[in-house]
Amino acid sequence: MTTSGVAPGYAQANLIAVPRDWAYDVLLFAQRNPKPCPILDVTDEGETTSHLAPGKDIRSHIPRYRVWEHGELTEEPEDVTEYWRDDLVSFLIGCSFSFETLLVQAGVPLRHIDQRKNVAMYVTNRECRPAERMHGPLVVSMRWIPESDVDTAVKTTAMMPAVHGAPVHIGAPEELGIKDITAPDEGEYAEPEPGDVPVFWACGVTPQMALRKSKPPFAITHAPGQMFVTDVPDATYLVS
Amino acid sequence: MTTSGVAPGYAQANLIAVPRDWAYDVLLFAQRNPKPCPILDVTDEGETTSHLAPGKDIRSHIPRYRVWEHGELTEEPEDVTEYWRDDLVSFLIGCSFSFETLLVQAGVPLRHIDQRKNVAMYVTNRECRPAERMHGPLVVSMRWIPESDVDTAVKTTAMMPAVHGAPVHIGAPEELGIKDITAPDEGEYAEPEPGDVPVFWACGVTPQMALRKSKPPFAITHAPGQMFVTDVPDATYLVS
Repeated sequence: MTTSGVAPGYAQANLIAVPRDWAYDVLLFAQRNPKPCPILDVTDEGETTSHLAPGKDIRSHIPRYRVWEHGELTEEPEDVTEYWRDDLVSFLIGCSFSFETLLVQAGVPLRHIDQRKNVAMYVTNRECRPAERMHGPLVVSMRWIPESDVDTAVKTTAMMPAVHGAPVHIGAPEELGIKDITAPDEGEYAEPEPGDVPVFWACGVTPQMALRKSKPPFAITHAPGQMFVTDVPDATYLVS
Repeated sequence: MTTSGVAPGYAQANLIAVPRDWAYDVLLFAQRNPKPCPILDVTDEGETTSHLAPGKDIRSHIPRYRVWEHGELTEEPEDVTEYWRDDLVSFLIGCSFSFETLLVQAGVPLRHIDQRKNVAMYVTNRECRPAERMHGPLVVSMRWIPESDVDTAVKTTAMMPAVHGAPVHIGAPEELGIKDITAPDEGEYAEPEPGDVPVFWACGVTPQMALRKSKPPFAITHAPGQMFVTDVPDATYLVS
């Protein structure tokens, strides 16, 4: 299950909600790592809505959530209203699904969509720049791209820096420390077609992995691939 | 006195240093108001250097500073080493001087540079989106641009979103609440040439004006127009 392909043309967002005491750490981590963590909105403490999707409740608008305690994943509920705390600050972070529509429009095939799978995500050997108590590795999403389309894919996604922008790596997965491309850390593996090259983009699951390492007492996130669907057209984030 | 034209081709930055207790407020204010407050770097608490200018001391590298107490400007020293506190977090924010080189290269004349003046800055009637305790009006810098060059000036500066990007307003100063264009709130008034139009860009003095309204107990900033000169080429911030 994934929101990839849901509400095409509208931006989707990663969620990370942490207690106000950890909000500076997360915001600074995002500022220092803008490729994986391009912030689209930050709510005020305790707020349960965002101007990105007026009228939608952040606690129930996402199909599946993750609840974290001291860096451990404790629950994966479909609604977090009963887990919510009044001191939570929500960060909504750009998602690469926003450029998928543009890629398809540019004629670039996307194997995971054709195979009705969630995109594959991998934890890499690259450390993010730490911020206060927040630290952790870069997470990437991978798409198989026909070699002849790689240039188009790079140029197309470079035009959307607020949703991760251009790839961080093309080809050789081992250079990112990925040992088995068929076994992603999150999401699902899609089969390539002959001549496909693996192309890696910075992923908004990065701050979620930093929770494992940094161990804030409490946090709520989306489940990878199951995003906060906004009312904001993808085109808003297009730099012309 | 201004650093405009100093170290041409290298980015300059606005400084706002606040106690760690106010750092989240300032960082969130910047995130919510990216046109006036595009962040280039945030230091760790107590740090006195930035990777933007390795080896330079933030406390003495700027020609003139401002010291603020409870929203009041108390001193304008040339060195703030004796005022420094170990709990200060420094925010370095993009400056429109970075696109001046590009404008001149594009053939757009800049009157304040020709007249050896600091750029004119005005407090506007537009409120920034508030963040926690930080709130205040948008501040703009103004440049007279020949009417035939306005289009070039817009397109050129739009390519540098990290240093304020495209203008926020063109023409009629009264629409920004500016009553007397010859009396800027900061900087100096430069005389136009016949056919010049006033063009307004979001200005990194904006968070400094927010200090007046928001009254943190202590803060240090640069004096308007006297910037932190970095070792980073302006071209780094160019989106192609």
